[in-house]
Formats: sequence, C-alpha cells, structure tokens
Amino acid sequence: MKILVVGGSGIVGSTVVDAMQDVAEVISVSRNSSAGKVDITSTDSIKQMFEHIGKVDALVSMVGTSNFCPIEELTPEKNDLGVQSKLLGQINLVLLGLNHIRDKGSITLTTGVLLAEPVVTAASATMANGGVHAFLKSTAVDMPRGIRINTVSPNVLEEAVERYGSLFEGFQPVQAKAVGLAYRKSILGAQTGESFYVY
Amino acid sequence: MKILVVGGSGIVGSTVVDAMQDVAEVISVSRNSSAGKVDITSTDSIKQMFEHIGKVDALVSMVGTSNFCPIEELTPEKNDLGVQSKLLGQINLVLLGLNHIRDKGSITLTTGVLLAEPVVTAASATMANGGVHAFLKSTAVDMPRGIRINTVSPNVLEEAVERYGSLFEGFQPVQAKAVGLAYRKSILGAQTGESFYVY
Repeated sequence: MKILVVGGSGIVGSTVVDAMQDVAEVISVSRNSSAGKVDITSTDSIKQMFEHIGKVDALVSMVGTSNFCPIEELTPEKNDLGVQSKLLGQINLVLLGLNHIRDKGSITLTTGVLLAEPVVTAASATMANGGVHAFLKSTAVDMPRGIRINTVSPNVLEEAVERYGSLFEGFQPVQAKAVGLAYRKSILGAQTGESFYVY
Repeated sequence: MKILVVGGSGIVGSTVVDAMQDVAEVISVSRNSSAGKVDITSTDSIKQMFEHIGKVDALVSMVGTSNFCPIEELTPEKNDLGVQSKLLGQINLVLLGLNHIRDKGSITLTTGVLLAEPVVTAASATMANGGVHAFLKSTAVDMPRGIRINTVSPNVLEEAVERYGSLFEGFQPVQAKAVGLAYRKSILGAQTGESFYVY
C-alpha cells in the first residue's frame, strides 16, 4: 500500500506519516520538504508531482491556508489566498490526481471546526472549508472505480492553542494524535462521503 | 427602501422584482439587462455597478452558473466557471458592496438543493453552494452596522423541471412564487445567518 500525504510536514501531517508507516509506504510532500515538493496553488506543480510519484492507493491532503481579517477589510484579493490554496489547492489535488489513484483507493481532504462554528475574521477560511465539504458530499456519489472520499474536520490543536487560541475561545482543543486517528480511519476504513469530526 | 437585485431577469429574479415593488424601489441588474448590466465575474464591473447605483438597503444576489460533468471529466479549467461565477461572483458582490449597504440593511445570496442532497455531475455547482453557505455562517457573526445576511436555498423550480428534471429525479419541484417569498422574508424579516430552504 502506498500513501501520498500532501502537507505531511505539519503537526498533524507528521503524526499521520509516522503512524501509517506500519501498514504502508508513505510519501510525504509539502511546500518546502526535502523529500518532495509541491505548490498546490499551481496545477502544473500538482501534475508534475503525480507524474513523478505514479500510482498511489491513498491520497491525503492536509494543506491550505487563508487570510484572516474582519469582513469589512476582506477584499477579493485577500480572499484569493483561501480560494487558491485551501479550497482549489485541495480540490485540484483530487481533479488532477484521480487517474493516479488505484481502484478501491481513497482520498482524504481536510476541513476544520470553522465549518461547524463560526468565529470573527474567518470568512475566507470558512468559505474554503464549506466548499471542500460540499465537494466531498457531491463527489462521493460520483467516484469511479470504487474510490472512496472523506474529509477530516479537526478542532483547534492542543499543540496550536498558543498560536491561535484567542480566535478559538471556548473551543475544546484536541490532540494531533486523535486527529491522526481520523485520517487512519478514512484511509483504512470502508466509509465514503463522511466528514470525520474531531471536536 | 431601495433593493438591488442582481440576476433579476431570471424566473425567480423577475418574481422577486415584481413582488417587492409594493414596498420598495427595486433596481434589477443582470448580465444582459437593458435596465442595468453587471458581469459578476469581474470585480471592476461589480465596483462600477455599485458606484453607479449608490447606497441601497438590500442586496439580493440570485446569480451564478457552473459546468456540470462527471467528476472524472471535471478539470480545474471546467471548475473555474463555478468558482468565478457562482462562488466568487456572489461573494465579491458582498465584499465590494458592503460599503454601499445602509445601516441595518440586508444581504441575500442564493445556494440550492444540491447543498443538501448530492447528485452526479454536480461537484462544481455543489462546491460553490457550499462555499457560499459557509461564507454566510461566518460573515453573519462579523457584519458591521447591523447589516443582516441570509441565503435562499431553493429546490428545482417547477418552471425549470423540463430543462433540469433528469438531474433531479425524485426531488420535489417548487414554484418560483414560493422561492420569491423566501427572499421577501430575508429582506423584510429580522433573521440573520439563516439559510431559508425552499424544499
């Protein structure tokens, strides 16, 4: 079994990469990794990555960023990062990667708690999460060759509370290890069209 | 009271434009209207529209289109229409229009039944609906000056069944008039952050 983890250098990413080694060959790529690089905002970069790596059994995406600011200050230009990265970056990994995923393989994308509970300054990130979530529901009924698709939607990480805590007052932080388990369930389980909430 | 209806030349749009005349001055603009034109995929066109029209009490968007095809045939290029039109077209109306909406005014955007129930070939449209829905939830807690924001999410229209029926087998068609009432509730009511489902 071969798993491609895009964004594998982050807190959760590295947890998943480490934890899946017992059952699979794990290829970890990210924007600045020495192991493998990809710029998810570039369709050419995504195509080159898949051509280089070849067929995989599971595609895991835990990438994407966006700008945070009050709605009054959010311009189309500021919103573009979330569109190109967190939303289309993940979706284009699916559209351009589908032919490289083996029969009965799986795709796991990442959303987040903003999808369920809004906070101020997060319109761009939330929009991206909502687009990915809806894309999941829609594509799950349209996937060829028995390929499954799920998302993992984690709460704020314990490991990131110090950095993002003030944005998520009252939210229950979760451990990266617990989030990693949700990815494992998506990759090795049987479900499709599911959003695995780690709240 | 002054209401700007973007996409007012469609079936539901013209129903809303007609039905709101009793309480407001209604300005109807669309891509090819003689009354007022806007290309929602162009931020310049949106800016020019608002500069020309000035302040309004309510912004209503019932615009946006997208390509329909099986997920295996959906390319980033084909997906771009839904991104630029149905998703960012509506969102940019908000981002660029916010300063032109009077205190305690309202914004009403449009999603659709695909948000609730997936069908094949509709990944791009569903993604756009999901992005708009999440944007609604997020901006409702961040709106300045008492401005409200809601969405209307209609089922397939009775008037459009012949054209789209095969895509929506088993779905309960609804009358344009019923959908029009949901917009009226959003514009004249007190709720914010609501998705008015007409299913």
